[in-house]
Amino acid sequence: MRRFLINQAKGLVDHSRRHHHKSPSFLSLVPPQSRPLASPAPASLVSLSRFFSSTSEMSASDSTSSLPVTLDSINPKVLKCEYAVRGEIVNIAQKLQEDLKANKDAYPFDEIIYCNIGNPQSLGQLPIRFFREVLALCDHASLLDESETHGLFSIDSIDRAWKILDQIPGRATGAYSHSQGIKGLRDVIAAGIEARDGFPADPNDIFLTDGASPAVHMMMQLLLSSEKDGILCPIPQYPLYSASIALHGGSLVPYYLDEATGWGLEISDLKKQLEEARSKGIAVRALVVINPGNPTGQVLAEENQRDIVNFCKQEGLVLLADEVYQENVYVPDKKFHSFKKVARSLGYGEKDISLVSFQSVSKGYYGECGKRGGYMEVTGFTSDVREQIYKMASVNLCSNISGQILASLVMSPPKPGDDSYDSYMAERDGILSSMAKRAKTLEDALNSLEGVTCNRAEGAMYLFPRISLPQKAIEAAEAEKTAPDAFYCKRLLNATGVVVVPGSGFGQVPGTWHFRCTILPQEDKIPAIVNRLTEFHKSFMDEFRN
Amino acid sequence: MRRFLINQAKGLVDHSRRHHHKSPSFLSLVPPQSRPLASPAPASLVSLSRFFSSTSEMSASDSTSSLPVTLDSINPKVLKCEYAVRGEIVNIAQKLQEDLKANKDAYPFDEIIYCNIGNPQSLGQLPIRFFREVLALCDHASLLDESETHGLFSIDSIDRAWKILDQIPGRATGAYSHSQGIKGLRDVIAAGIEARDGFPADPNDIFLTDGASPAVHMMMQLLLSSEKDGILCPIPQYPLYSASIALHGGSLVPYYLDEATGWGLEISDLKKQLEEARSKGIAVRALVVINPGNPTGQVLAEENQRDIVNFCKQEGLVLLADEVYQENVYVPDKKFHSFKKVARSLGYGEKDISLVSFQSVSKGYYGECGKRGGYMEVTGFTSDVREQIYKMASVNLCSNISGQILASLVMSPPKPGDDSYDSYMAERDGILSSMAKRAKTLEDALNSLEGVTCNRAEGAMYLFPRISLPQKAIEAAEAEKTAPDAFYCKRLLNATGVVVVPGSGFGQVPGTWHFRCTILPQEDKIPAIVNRLTEFHKSFMDEFRN
Repeated sequence: MRRFLINQAKGLVDHSRRHHHKSPSFLSLVPPQSRPLASPAPASLVSLSRFFSSTSEMSASDSTSSLPVTLDSINPKVLKCEYAVRGEIVNIAQKLQEDLKANKDAYPFDEIIYCNIGNPQSLGQLPIRFFREVLALCDHASLLDESETHGLFSIDSIDRAWKILDQIPGRATGAYSHSQGIKGLRDVIAAGIEARDGFPADPNDIFLTDGASPAVHMMMQLLLSSEKDGILCPIPQYPLYSASIALHGGSLVPYYLDEATGWGLEISDLKKQLEEARSKGIAVRALVVINPGNPTGQVLAEENQRDIVNFCKQEGLVLLADEVYQENVYVPDKKFHSFKKVARSLGYGEKDISLVSFQSVSKGYYGECGKRGGYMEVTGFTSDVREQIYKMASVNLCSNISGQILASLVMSPPKPGDDSYDSYMAERDGILSSMAKRAKTLEDALNSLEGVTCNRAEGAMYLFPRISLPQKAIEAAEAEKTAPDAFYCKRLLNATGVVVVPGSGFGQVPGTWHFRCTILPQEDKIPAIVNRLTEFHKSFMDEFRN
Repeated sequence: MRRFLINQAKGLVDHSRRHHHKSPSFLSLVPPQSRPLASPAPASLVSLSRFFSSTSEMSASDSTSSLPVTLDSINPKVLKCEYAVRGEIVNIAQKLQEDLKANKDAYPFDEIIYCNIGNPQSLGQLPIRFFREVLALCDHASLLDESETHGLFSIDSIDRAWKILDQIPGRATGAYSHSQGIKGLRDVIAAGIEARDGFPADPNDIFLTDGASPAVHMMMQLLLSSEKDGILCPIPQYPLYSASIALHGGSLVPYYLDEATGWGLEISDLKKQLEEARSKGIAVRALVVINPGNPTGQVLAEENQRDIVNFCKQEGLVLLADEVYQENVYVPDKKFHSFKKVARSLGYGEKDISLVSFQSVSKGYYGECGKRGGYMEVTGFTSDVREQIYKMASVNLCSNISGQILASLVMSPPKPGDDSYDSYMAERDGILSSMAKRAKTLEDALNSLEGVTCNRAEGAMYLFPRISLPQKAIEAAEAEKTAPDAFYCKRLLNATGVVVVPGSGFGQVPGTWHFRCTILPQEDKIPAIVNRLTEFHKSFMDEFRN
C-alpha cells in the first residue's frame, strides 16, 4: 500500500492526477439504491486526494540529492491524508492574488474573494467588542490599575477581566494552565452548558483546546489503532474528519446524507453501512454527526437526534457531536439542540452513552478563528479511559490562555443590565441576521441558475449547491485529469476571483457534483458576487451545452 | 503486546505498579561500560511508565458498565505514552494544595512550590511589558484610535502594533492565517534568525505553531511509520520526545549523555547506539539534540555541535534541534550556537543536511508558556516532502495569532533608541541574572548535601542532581513498588511542599537516581527552599542510613 500511496503522491506532485482511484482509507460504499442521484459519470466519490497538493509549483525530489527523507520513507498515513479546504484551488487563488498586485488589468476582477473556508473576520466581519476588551485587559493586566482605562473600556469588561484574573492562579495569564484548562473558566463553561441545555454539566468533563481540531484529533488518536477500527462519518463531511482518520490510521465508514430530504440522516442507512463495515471485519468505534451541518447547512430535527442517540446506544458507538455551529441557525422553524440535552432527555446518563461534544470560538456570531479557542465536553467514559484522555491533553501541556478565556466568554456573554449588553446584542444580532440574509440571497441566486439546485442554509456558514454539469464539461474535465466539479470551480475562480471548494473535497454521491461556498462575504459585496456568478455560470453552460 | 500494555495500565490504575518492566517502545540498551555509574540496584532505566497515571483516585472500569470504550479497545500507543512532568507527583501535589486550604495546620509548610515544570510566570515572574502592550493593542485594535492610549502605552509598542496589523490581511487578528503563520511575521522571525546566526533564513521555512510541542509531534508523525522507525534521543531526555515517539508508534533509540563530563555527548556512543539499532532492523530517521539541555542544563560546545552535524550528515539522519532555551545561558564560558549556524559554517547548505530547529515563546527570559507560541525552521527537505509538512500544518488550519505575534516579538525585541528599550533591557537582564543567581544558589545547596552531586546549570531552567540513595531507602521504595527516586521525591513533597520530578521520568543510567528541579521560584523564596530541602535530606538520610 505504501507504494500505491507514494505513486499517488508523486502523481499529484507531477500534476498528472489520477482520476478514478479510491482512497484506501475509505471503505468502498454503494450509495443507497433508493436515491435517484447516481449517474453513469465517472465515480470520484470520496476520492479527495486530487485536492491535497498545496502549491502548483512543486517539483519532485531531486534524485541526485543526498537528503535523507523522501516520499518513500515518510509515514504513509501522512501521504494518505487530504484536506480540500486548503487544497489546490486555494493555492491557485493565492497565486492569482499575488499576480493581481502586479497585473491589475490582466484579470476581469479586482480582488480574490475567499469563500472556501469559514473565516468570517478575513472577509471583514468585526470582532465582538466586549470579547476583545476583556482579552486586552487580561493580556496586559496592569491596564486595570490605570485611571485612563475606565474611559477606554466598558465597566463590565473591566469587571469580567478581574473575575477571570482571579480564577487564574497568581493571575498569571502567561503560565501553563491545568492540562484541561483553567478550572475557573471550565466552571463558567459548564454553567453555560447547563443554562443552554437544562441539564447538569461538570467542569471536569471539559477539555479546553486550541480550536476544535485538536480535540477531534485527540479522540481519533484514542479510538483508532489500525485500519480495522472505523468511524462512521457523514458524506458529505468536513474534511477534518477524513484527514484525522487517515492520519491516525483508521477507516472512514461513510454514511450518506440525503440531499433530496434536505440532507437528512436516515437511521436505516446508518445501520446498513455499519453492518457492511462489520461484515468486513471493521470494528466501528464512533459515529460523527455535524449539526448544524458542514458543508450541508442542515439543522437536525430533535426527533432525528433522538434516533441517532438511540442508535449509538444500541450499537455501542461513541457519539462524536460536532456542534461548533450551535449559534448559527437562520430559520425560524429549526432550533439547535445539543446531543447531550437530547440524550439526557431520553434518560441516558453518564453510564449509558459515551458522548463528546465539540465547540469552537471560530464559528457562531463571534468568528474568532485566529484565537484558536474551543473545548470538548467528554461524558460517559470510564475513569480509566478518561485518565488516558487527560494524559494525551497533558503531553501538549495546555491550550492557549487567550483562547481559553474567549471560550469562557462565548459561553457566558454579557447579560441584560450589563454595561455592554445593548451594544453586544446589537453586534450579535446584526451579524446573525446579516448572515441569514446573505444565505438567502445566495441560495436564491444559485437556485435561479440553469441546472443548479441548492438546499437552504438552515444553519452553519455554507451553501452546498448541486450542479448538473453538461456531458461536454465532464469530458473536458477528464481531458484535464481533474474532477468535473473541480474543473467548474477553477473556471469560476479564473473568471470571477471567487474561491469555492469542489464537492469532491467533501464526498458526494457518485456522479453528482457540488461545491461549497461560504455565506461570509460582507453584504455590500453580495450583489457583485451574485452577478459574477450568474454571468460565469451562463457562459460556462453556453460553452459546454450538449 | 496490547494485552501487556493494558495490564500495565491497569496495574498503574490499581496502584500496584510494576517495577522492573521495560517500556516496549524503548530499545533495550546497555550503558557504556566505560562509565562508572552503574550500580547493582534494580534497573529501571527508561522505564517511565510508573509516572504516567494522572490522579491517585482513579478506579478501574466498572465491569457492569455498558459503555463502549475500555482500556482494551483504545489505541495501545496511547496506553504506552508517558509524561512524567505532569505525572503522579504533580497530582499528589494538587491534592495537597487543595487540602492545605482546609487544613492549614496539618502540614509543615504553607504552600506548594511547583518546581516540576519550566513555567516561570506560575511562580511570580512578570511578563515583559513591551510584549504585553503590543499583544493588548493587537487584540483590541480600536485602542489605537483613542487619544488616551498614548498615555497608557509606549510609543514603540504602538508603532509595533501598527506594523503587525499592517502585516495581517485586513488587519484581522481574528482570522485564520496562512497555515504556516502570517507571512509578515515569518519575515520578521527569519530576519531575527539571520541576525542571530549570520546566515540567511527563509520565511518560507518557518512554521509557526502553538508552542514547540505540536511542531515536535508533526515531525514525529512525518518520520515514524512503525516500530521499525527509530529516533535517537538523549537519555536523560525531555519526555515530550518519548511521549510523541510512543504516540506515533516509533521506537526511541537512546543515547547516553555522560554525567561525568557535564552531560557531554559522545559521538562514539551515538555511533554505537545507531549501529545496535540498525542491527535490530530499526531504520533510524533522526537524532534529537536538546541544547541547552533539558533536564540536564548543559550548553554544548561548538566543536561538539560540529561533530553532531557531521555525524547526521554521514549517517543520513534528520537533525531535530530543540533550541527552546537559546536565550537561557548563565555561564560566561559558554555561548549558544544554533545548529543551523554550525551546519552552515561547515559549508552544508539546503541540499546537504536536513535540519529542524524548534523555538518557543515559553522559555527564554519571556517565559510566556500560556501564550502557546513557537515555530520550527525546516531546512534541507525536498519540495515534495515539504509539501507534506505543509499539508499536516493545514489540517489544524493555523496556530493562534497572539502566539504568532509573540514569536515575532521575541525574535525582534526593542532596539537601542526605542522608547521601551531601557526598561525592556532592565526587565530582561533582571530575569536572566536572577535565574543565574538562583541556579548557582540551588546548585551549591544541592552539592552540599550528603551523597548528592549536581552539575552546574550552564543553561535552560533546571538542575538535575544525582542522589546516592542508601540501600535501605531503595528497599523501602521497592516495598512500596515505586522507583527509589520517585520515593525520594514523594517524601520531599510531603515534607516540604516542593514538587520535583524523579529522574526515572527522563531516563537515567541504571542504578543511578536523580531528580529534576527548576530554578524558577522567585529569589526571595530560595533561602527557605534551600533550608527545607537541606533539613529534609538530612532527616531522610538519617532515617535510611545503612
